[in-house]
Amino acid sequence: VTSDVLLRPIGLVESPVTDPALAARQADEGAPDCWLVLDPAVRPALDGLRPGDDIVVVTWLHLADRTVLRVHPRGDASRPMRGVFATRSQHRPNPLGIHQVTIVAIDDLRVHVQGLEAVDGTPIIDVKSALEPRGQR
Amino acid sequence: VTSDVLLRPIGLVESPVTDPALAARQADEGAPDCWLVLDPAVRPALDGLRPGDDIVVVTWLHLADRTVLRVHPRGDASRPMRGVFATRSQHRPNPLGIHQVTIVAIDDLRVHVQGLEAVDGTPIIDVKSALEPRGQR
Repeated sequence: VTSDVLLRPIGLVESPVTDPALAARQADEGAPDCWLVLDPAVRPALDGLRPGDDIVVVTWLHLADRTVLRVHPRGDASRPMRGVFATRSQHRPNPLGIHQVTIVAIDDLRVHVQGLEAVDGTPIIDVKSALEPRGQR
Repeated sequence: VTSDVLLRPIGLVESPVTDPALAARQADEGAPDCWLVLDPAVRPALDGLRPGDDIVVVTWLHLADRTVLRVHPRGDASRPMRGVFATRSQHRPNPLGIHQVTIVAIDDLRVHVQGLEAVDGTPIIDVKSALEPRGQR
C-alpha cells in the first residue's frame, strides 16, 4: 500500500515480569513495579514530565507473532475466532502496545511507572501526555 | 538501545482534510468524514468489526519532523518549550498517532469512521478494539 517505516526504539522497559503469560494477569491485580529506561539521545524530550502525570507509553511487543490475523479472544478456545483488529491480542501485523500509566518518580533517564503490562526488555517506541486522548496537537 | 523495528503499513486514511494545520481543528469541530482503506492482505484481521464499535487506530504521522525533541505546547510561542514526551505534538522521534474513533459503516476493506484527525494519505499501522484500554490481551 505504502512504503515501510523504520522505528528506532527510544528505550527499554525494566520489569520484574519476564513471563508473557503473567504480564496481563499482574496488571489486573494492580501495579507491577516498572521502569522506563530511556536512551540518553532523547533526554531533552523528557523535559516537563512530573510524578503524578498520566502518560501513554507505546511499546513494541517483540514476543508477538506478526503472522497471526485471527485469534480466539483472550486465548479462550471456547470463543469463536475473530480478526485481531477486533481484539486487543498482542499478535497482529504490527504489534504495538498502548499503555496508559501514571508516573511515580523520575530519576534522569529512568521513569518509574505504575501499572505497565509488559515483560522485562520490551522496547519503548513513544511516550505522550495522556491528556486530550483524541487529539494530536 | 535495541534493534530497529520495521513497520509495514496495513492501509491508508482517505480524508477530505489535506492541510495538516486544519486536521486538529476539524476534529474539534466534530467529525471529519474519513475512511480506513485496508490492504487485501489483512482482510481476515477485520473479521468481527461492526458499525458502532469503538476502535483505536494507530497511524504513522508521515508529515512529522522526527528530529524535534522540544516544542512550544500547541505551537503557542508564548508557552515555554517542553519535551515532546510531555505533549501530544506530532513531532517526535517515532511519530505514531493514536486515535479513538467509532465505526460508522464497513464495506469489505473500507471502514467508515467518525472523528479521525489525520490528513488524506496517512499510513495506518494498527487497529485495536477500544475496550480495556489498559489491557493487551
